[in-house]
Amino acid sequence: MNAISKPAANLPDSEFVARTRRLNTVMKRLKLDALFVQTEVNRYYFTGMFTSNGIIMAERGEEPLFFTDFRYVISACKEIRCMPSKLLWKGSEEQGVLRGFGSGWKRVGFEGAISAARFIKFKEALPDAEWVDIQDEILQLRSIKSKAERGAMRRACAANDLMLEAVLNQVQRGMSEWEISALVRREAETLGQGEAFKAIVCVGSNAAECHHHPGSTVMCNNQLLLIDLGVKVNHYCSDMTRTTFFGKPTALYKKIYKIVLDANREAISKIKPGVSCDAIDRVARDYITKAGYGKNFGHGLGHGLGLDVHENPRFSSAEKTVLKPGMVITVEPGIYLPGRLGIRVEDVVLVTRDGCELLSGFDRSGYRELE
Amino acid sequence: MNAISKPAANLPDSEFVARTRRLNTVMKRLKLDALFVQTEVNRYYFTGMFTSNGIIMAERGEEPLFFTDFRYVISACKEIRCMPSKLLWKGSEEQGVLRGFGSGWKRVGFEGAISAARFIKFKEALPDAEWVDIQDEILQLRSIKSKAERGAMRRACAANDLMLEAVLNQVQRGMSEWEISALVRREAETLGQGEAFKAIVCVGSNAAECHHHPGSTVMCNNQLLLIDLGVKVNHYCSDMTRTTFFGKPTALYKKIYKIVLDANREAISKIKPGVSCDAIDRVARDYITKAGYGKNFGHGLGHGLGLDVHENPRFSSAEKTVLKPGMVITVEPGIYLPGRLGIRVEDVVLVTRDGCELLSGFDRSGYRELE
Repeated sequence: MNAISKPAANLPDSEFVARTRRLNTVMKRLKLDALFVQTEVNRYYFTGMFTSNGIIMAERGEEPLFFTDFRYVISACKEIRCMPSKLLWKGSEEQGVLRGFGSGWKRVGFEGAISAARFIKFKEALPDAEWVDIQDEILQLRSIKSKAERGAMRRACAANDLMLEAVLNQVQRGMSEWEISALVRREAETLGQGEAFKAIVCVGSNAAECHHHPGSTVMCNNQLLLIDLGVKVNHYCSDMTRTTFFGKPTALYKKIYKIVLDANREAISKIKPGVSCDAIDRVARDYITKAGYGKNFGHGLGHGLGLDVHENPRFSSAEKTVLKPGMVITVEPGIYLPGRLGIRVEDVVLVTRDGCELLSGFDRSGYRELE
Repeated sequence: MNAISKPAANLPDSEFVARTRRLNTVMKRLKLDALFVQTEVNRYYFTGMFTSNGIIMAERGEEPLFFTDFRYVISACKEIRCMPSKLLWKGSEEQGVLRGFGSGWKRVGFEGAISAARFIKFKEALPDAEWVDIQDEILQLRSIKSKAERGAMRRACAANDLMLEAVLNQVQRGMSEWEISALVRREAETLGQGEAFKAIVCVGSNAAECHHHPGSTVMCNNQLLLIDLGVKVNHYCSDMTRTTFFGKPTALYKKIYKIVLDANREAISKIKPGVSCDAIDRVARDYITKAGYGKNFGHGLGHGLGLDVHENPRFSSAEKTVLKPGMVITVEPGIYLPGRLGIRVEDVVLVTRDGCELLSGFDRSGYRELE
């Protein structure tokens, strides 16, 4: 069999201990008596263990506890060192258990991302408590990558460069989008622990459908290929898009490619701490609009990434968040001309103390020869 | 490169037309003026297209509409034939748009699985409407598989049999759990469109951690291997667990294996329309309890599956749902002895008019020779 990667490794335990401490800071600042962390990736962020079921309960002044069910509790007791793990109550007992814990709680933090049905049950169990949505607080913590996380993001992005090189080297005349997407999946197993998301692979005018599903359209010479791909390395996600013309590019392709690439470069050159996200979005959007294609760039300029492929903050006209060192965000302008072509160039940047570091290194020339 | 599967194919358009009609039946029965379907798999169930963003809005007496964003709307207009697709409003405009649509609505259906934050926004936009959770209604529709869906489930389960055979034939001395899980992923790409869930691969006493993550423990002779795996074929999921002792089984293994397999057989023999789910759970649980291992079987007996790997109904002590023809459910008793061993035997069954059809065909002998 091919070389395969190793199982995902966690960052050092000290990371999880530090994160768990920050939960207490959130509780103090928001004057909460307790909080719950129930969504999967947030739970991993604090515990260092992925489980499909579980609840972190933190009570002011007490050590947080991780509850998980029969299927995971033995592993959790072994693997989680930053907080004790306990057997989760049964679903039918939940409301009674909450009443027992929370009889004295006045303000309780919850994640807005939990299901409405669950939130309604929690509120019924503790009807006198004020429920405070702490989702954004947690996403803010997650948006600032620690030194160890910055290293993880660099490795994930370096793996993405290698992955795209390996894929493009294997692309042949007659290969379908689906077959190319299978190459991505195979390389993602070798270079990391699988894809960070389902790769978008578009041949020719399919690229105008911004999030096209890879299908049976086949590669041929004098055709463009757009690939948007990411790989998970030790739980952290990369994300990159390259549009490549195989053969001799048309005049339209060259013109649009230059506009998109320039918009990408221009936006990246403005990224530094203190600038707001909407200002960066505007740099690329104004550039594309002045070139006459504003209506053909219908999505935001980028999104944070880390444990999830879409995190905070976003580069969009509605996002006022101010950039801070340690944020990791994509910059992905695109121009889509239905029935003709679509071009997107996406890079990942890390905001540094005085600017940004480009984590995606892959060639941006926009064309190559087909084997 | 290896043989790979084709892109997932949809069931015929008539399926989606029939499902969309059932939305109207739900609206009439629950006396709703309108309903929203917003979660990804439910959206696919009605539209036949996967998108990471979108909303189906159905108003009583009107044709349902599918709204999706710039990234998908071109594909949606091309691919979705059971309802018109439109460009989704912007997040910042959402509440205004909802007020425009819903000024006369008194009772509105929503899925309890949407996020609490979104539900709160919807309620704020239409504060006078009564919000009715229709999640269970939709899951009930999904729980009864049509003739075409039953065919899809048979194919997914047949692919799972082939997948496990291919994997077990490649298992060698010295191979780690992680490497074996990579074999599963590779075969899932060949036999379908990838894994239905991350395979659980446990060597020896790791199997006592019911949902162990595949790690660096290696296979050797006279050792058990538990593999819980599934493959997606044309969007439908299979799920199967086999525990296999490589070499000469110990007396303890033989004893526990027989109890688990007998509990599985016994429960399956009782499955037929009209029996309640908790009664089936009880058959296996009583059997294992009488054998002295009730406390070592800490999870439910099984779960429905289809587009998702966990659907309704469940075989659990709390589930009163009565079995109906067309339901597809797993039967997966297990006994877990921490530090010693874990054994689970999981099959998928389809409830028929007068009993059930076993969709998992893989060998249940519980041992084989290691290559």
